[in-house]
Amino acid sequence: MNDCIFCKIIKKEIPASVVYEDEEILAFDDIRPQAPVHTLIIPKIHLASLKEASPEQAALLGKILIQAREIARLKGIDATGYRVVLNTGPDSGQEVLHIHFHLLGGRRLGWPPG
Amino acid sequence: MNDCIFCKIIKKEIPASVVYEDEEILAFDDIRPQAPVHTLIIPKIHLASLKEASPEQAALLGKILIQAREIARLKGIDATGYRVVLNTGPDSGQEVLHIHFHLLGGRRLGWPPG
Repeated sequence: MNDCIFCKIIKKEIPASVVYEDEEILAFDDIRPQAPVHTLIIPKIHLASLKEASPEQAALLGKILIQAREIARLKGIDATGYRVVLNTGPDSGQEVLHIHFHLLGGRRLGWPPG
Repeated sequence: MNDCIFCKIIKKEIPASVVYEDEEILAFDDIRPQAPVHTLIIPKIHLASLKEASPEQAALLGKILIQAREIARLKGIDATGYRVVLNTGPDSGQEVLHIHFHLLGGRRLGWPPG
């Protein structure tokens, strides 16, 4: 997608603080962090949200979750704990229409989750 | 796990308001809802948290996300939007040590997510 900011980050047209990258996944720190650790994990394929995901993409989505766990380990919040958040649609506040998982940790996270 | 409350719900030893069930996944409404829609989606296999998930379980985790999307449709929050939350470890407030995804919607969800 030409006008997608996350696709531009994937193509290195916009800088980002990259935490992890492989053929399918990119992870980078959120520019408006809500916790000491706040990293976004996205698929490189453009997918607007969970609503557009096909059942065939389940393995990719699950791989992102497994990678979130690995990033939590890298960031040193493996023992203290962390929250993974996936927003979909207006009520969730999803701003960028390229599916992204938020990994948050490094502080006590409240309940409800928003 | 004999003493796991979610395993007991899976075995129908404890009642729950079941929303969806198949061979691998069970979904039921949270008894302490934090939004008009608040459903928990769990794998039937006992897995304490994302920390214990193996890369081979990525497809199962992704299938749970795809199912969350389907439950959002069933619950009528597909257009208004929803948030999926996965807590891991103490800072997240994870209470039951059987991995569970929270699906929340039916109201505007705030930011930060806890």
